[in-house]
Amino acid sequence: MTELKALVFDLQGTLVDFYQPLMRAGADINAGRAQPIDWSAFSVRWRDRYRRAMDAILAGTSPWRTVDAIYRTALDDLLEEDGSTASLTARERDALNAVWTRLEPWPDSASGLSRLRERFTTATLTNASMSAAIAVVKHAALPFDAVLSAELVRSYKPAEAVYRLAVDYLGFKADEIMLVACHKYDLHAGHAFGLRTAFIARSLEFGPDGRPDTQPDTTFDINAHDVVDLAIRLDC
Amino acid sequence: MTELKALVFDLQGTLVDFYQPLMRAGADINAGRAQPIDWSAFSVRWRDRYRRAMDAILAGTSPWRTVDAIYRTALDDLLEEDGSTASLTARERDALNAVWTRLEPWPDSASGLSRLRERFTTATLTNASMSAAIAVVKHAALPFDAVLSAELVRSYKPAEAVYRLAVDYLGFKADEIMLVACHKYDLHAGHAFGLRTAFIARSLEFGPDGRPDTQPDTTFDINAHDVVDLAIRLDC
Repeated sequence: MTELKALVFDLQGTLVDFYQPLMRAGADINAGRAQPIDWSAFSVRWRDRYRRAMDAILAGTSPWRTVDAIYRTALDDLLEEDGSTASLTARERDALNAVWTRLEPWPDSASGLSRLRERFTTATLTNASMSAAIAVVKHAALPFDAVLSAELVRSYKPAEAVYRLAVDYLGFKADEIMLVACHKYDLHAGHAFGLRTAFIARSLEFGPDGRPDTQPDTTFDINAHDVVDLAIRLDC
Repeated sequence: MTELKALVFDLQGTLVDFYQPLMRAGADINAGRAQPIDWSAFSVRWRDRYRRAMDAILAGTSPWRTVDAIYRTALDDLLEEDGSTASLTARERDALNAVWTRLEPWPDSASGLSRLRERFTTATLTNASMSAAIAVVKHAALPFDAVLSAELVRSYKPAEAVYRLAVDYLGFKADEIMLVACHKYDLHAGHAFGLRTAFIARSLEFGPDGRPDTQPDTTFDINAHDVVDLAIRLDC
């Protein structure tokens, strides 16, 4: 077994929460409306819409765009479908899209990362754009040595080129690097590329009534409860 | 005047010292030699050699290579010219080249950056490779929000594409970003691109007997003594 040198982290879901910041932005908007919008249901559709847009890019049926543009188009399309566009101001729509740069850290994220960074090189490996990832990491005060984003290769996970970024830019071999994520599709693709993998269970990723996949999987080197738990398992 | 949002920093010379770590690595080697090598003179030739290799790449007369490869080739070529190759072990040559990832921070670098980072987004903008820059930043414990390197566009400063990285990946306009460096060629190119500029005087960059250009220049928005002085000038 080679020595572990670095950890690369998925950001949204794994280290930061999208659901609660969206609920708060949505509550501000609902306060001024006769007909409240169900933002919890909206969040599921928004995620689904941008994932499909990414998949179309990966399939080659759409040209590459930054994820910021994808988020915004998906938002505008959904509001139009619901007939809500006219009733939301441009400012309210900007506020909704800005949630992506003000994601909140889970309570274990900063302390777990801090412990891991003492012994390992730590970086993001995210589908967010570089500017969004840098803004999120700064807003959430997450201690990283570097920010790596799929934008650097104008692609998205689970494309292999994104995992290769970690090898090319951290200067370690694939099996000296561990990918940490709460999404199994990401970990399976990282594993296929040759990275080590750690699964983090995030039961609240889709809100208090969500049903994300939190089952341990023996494919992964580590199945952890959270980032502090990962630090403990790695003797940090 | 637009509001300043971010600062991007040259690394080698501006924030970290190459000279003293090379002198220490050289002293270790000289301890075992009958004929000591003048590492101070060697450092000037090594820098000159790699700068010429970079310029050949920018001129299109050499294919792009990482700066790590340039450093090593320049080292091996110089040792061969001096007839010193045979008397240095491969391990000693590796130790010399490894100096590039163990550069030492100037005494003001970490504290100045820390103050600036409270108000601004901070990133490197360096000719070092991504892996070398990440290693240097970690080794020197420099607090940055992101590491940006010319390697991301497979070029070198002063090519315009390198300055554009700051705009593309930090998400701010050129005149919302300030380039901080101790080398005027770098600042002049950043200024031509539209970045704001801050010159840092580094009188010890070439060692105690060196003669670097430390003169203030009114082309630059700020001429500072060091990074803490820059923080003071920017009210941080």
